[in-house]
Amino acid sequence: MAERSMIFPAQEYRARIDRLQAGMAQGELNALLLSAPADIFYTTGFLTRFWESPARPWFVVVPQAGDPVAVIPTIGADLMGRTWLRDIRTWQAPDPRDDGITLLADALAEAVPEGGRIGLPMGQETHLRMPLAGFETLAARLAPRSFVDATDCVHRVREIKSEAEITKIRETCAIAARAFDRVPEFAKAGQSLAEVFRSFQIALLAEGADWVSYVAGGAGPDGYGDVISPAGPQRLQQGDVLMLDTGAVRDGYFCDFDRNFAIGPASGPARRAHAALWQATEETLAGLRPGLRACDVHRMLGEGLQRRSMAPSAGRLGHGLGVTLTEWPSFTPLDQTPLRAGMVLTLEPGCVTGDGRIMVHEENIVLREDGAELLSRRAPSELPVILS
Amino acid sequence: MAERSMIFPAQEYRARIDRLQAGMAQGELNALLLSAPADIFYTTGFLTRFWESPARPWFVVVPQAGDPVAVIPTIGADLMGRTWLRDIRTWQAPDPRDDGITLLADALAEAVPEGGRIGLPMGQETHLRMPLAGFETLAARLAPRSFVDATDCVHRVREIKSEAEITKIRETCAIAARAFDRVPEFAKAGQSLAEVFRSFQIALLAEGADWVSYVAGGAGPDGYGDVISPAGPQRLQQGDVLMLDTGAVRDGYFCDFDRNFAIGPASGPARRAHAALWQATEETLAGLRPGLRACDVHRMLGEGLQRRSMAPSAGRLGHGLGVTLTEWPSFTPLDQTPLRAGMVLTLEPGCVTGDGRIMVHEENIVLREDGAELLSRRAPSELPVILS
Repeated sequence: MAERSMIFPAQEYRARIDRLQAGMAQGELNALLLSAPADIFYTTGFLTRFWESPARPWFVVVPQAGDPVAVIPTIGADLMGRTWLRDIRTWQAPDPRDDGITLLADALAEAVPEGGRIGLPMGQETHLRMPLAGFETLAARLAPRSFVDATDCVHRVREIKSEAEITKIRETCAIAARAFDRVPEFAKAGQSLAEVFRSFQIALLAEGADWVSYVAGGAGPDGYGDVISPAGPQRLQQGDVLMLDTGAVRDGYFCDFDRNFAIGPASGPARRAHAALWQATEETLAGLRPGLRACDVHRMLGEGLQRRSMAPSAGRLGHGLGVTLTEWPSFTPLDQTPLRAGMVLTLEPGCVTGDGRIMVHEENIVLREDGAELLSRRAPSELPVILS
Repeated sequence: MAERSMIFPAQEYRARIDRLQAGMAQGELNALLLSAPADIFYTTGFLTRFWESPARPWFVVVPQAGDPVAVIPTIGADLMGRTWLRDIRTWQAPDPRDDGITLLADALAEAVPEGGRIGLPMGQETHLRMPLAGFETLAARLAPRSFVDATDCVHRVREIKSEAEITKIRETCAIAARAFDRVPEFAKAGQSLAEVFRSFQIALLAEGADWVSYVAGGAGPDGYGDVISPAGPQRLQQGDVLMLDTGAVRDGYFCDFDRNFAIGPASGPARRAHAALWQATEETLAGLRPGLRACDVHRMLGEGLQRRSMAPSAGRLGHGLGVTLTEWPSFTPLDQTPLRAGMVLTLEPGCVTGDGRIMVHEENIVLREDGAELLSRRAPSELPVILS
């Protein structure tokens, strides 16, 4: 019961807090208020699927100096007590009179002088995971302290993965690679997509995933309509291209990559699209370097497709990866985020294969000083064929 | 590709919107802004696991009259186009310059006159799933229109399930019941909890779950320390009580119940605790009626345990259930929510079995005019024993 529940030793978390506190000092923040599951996991190691319940808010306060304070519902006290945190304050949630607001206001008031600044992630890719009315009460209670945006402060730290984190993501990628190897066992013409999705999740678990937070995919002749759909009753047919995409989880770390399969002999357009996606990825893998910006990667992938007479699909062509399925930056023409060594990224080119149809391709990498290092086992250069 | 992706026929969704609009009229709301996955699924039928990606906000605007408007990232256009919604407005997200704010402001300005009121869930069990800075920009753009709390409006509608919804939840409960039947096949002394959790998820998928959003549990002599932990490396031992709790999902509808198993012959304290939990549940099942309040259920379960000399565990003893793992109300001494026919609820008594140890027990029901109807197959009255 008193068994510790730590993904990493305490020094890993202390190093993260040190880096956050350095960013806070630069941003003149007296404290950081975190409420999102990923931020709380990142700073404490508190890992639970209980986030599925929207009933209760949870908080971590990072002061300008010293260790973080957890302000959480009593139901989490046992589990948080097994992390490296020592200052854990609890209330019996849900409480319609005061759902942790007084407890949190007190913790923040201890850390932040009157007139001081409290950093809160408020920008792109963030949400405040507490009732808005509760936040408004909190802000009024803490005035003249002010809340200021701390998105950059958190993102610049979380986007650089430690070697321990990279090892975890590599392990999750290996689990998914083994599960993809087994797709030909259960994805046959005549099978419903629902059964294929179920079998794929079972394969991921059997290969070592703790849980499977994300599976999407599609199937159709020469491509599919979108890449975020759950499975419908549709059955696989000869001539379909099947795509499966997964965010499996091991020790709280995600993979995020997909694979394509031809059901029966592959059509010419499907083979050509797959080859173009693979080659554009290959060139980008070779060209990635710290100092490029996110938008440069979008351009590299897009030009690689265009050189092979394929039209890139709209939207982003990859993103960050780590303790959530997707993280910043986004490989779009608009994202100027500089790439730095230690970032874990997905390369996810997509191309148009027909009217309303696309094909996508994805790999996971860590960016090193001298270029990209694959974390996912590289897809085959030719579209694999499943014969029934 | 143009295949419709509807869990229910359009009339189910229209009936929900009618009921929301009746509540909006009562609350003098000109429109409702929804951003949470559950609220968007509830009003549109848009079902995807893509919510795992925090990169993009998604919105549904419910006007005072007429059909809802979806304001969503382009990546969701294909899937949303297969729901009953016809007014679907998209932008290429993520966009660091304007991530849907202008498009959303325009949709709200069409529905809401200057000085009008926009309802937004801001109270308990709600979050605003968009960047806070984006919301502040939106609110400034829409002034003198105001945002007011619409938690009650949404909750009073969503908490009353249609027969179609009740059928879905009953199906998910049946899947979990079959998976629990298989626990003795894989939960043996010597097995790690991590392997047991994995095998249980595989069983849930094999029995028909689309995915498994939640598994938690614990094991120890005469009970466990908490009920929200993921599995650790701990191995089951003779004399342990193993508890597994699941929120599996089928067609977007959850079950949420747990089961206990003795690993080897059950100890006297574990058997007595299980019997007390079962009997307190039995009495409460018999006594539940519309018109009681949530706090009455807490009292009924607690008194049932105390009559059997067991101390109820702290915290809530059950809650609502439906399109998320947990919904309001909460069976606590503080929750005054009146129970109404059509509510789907969990009865979840817990009792203290030793120093820092508890046991819990859970059933899912729908409240009818004449009382509780079980949706989960009733647990056995005696703690089941797994012999190796």
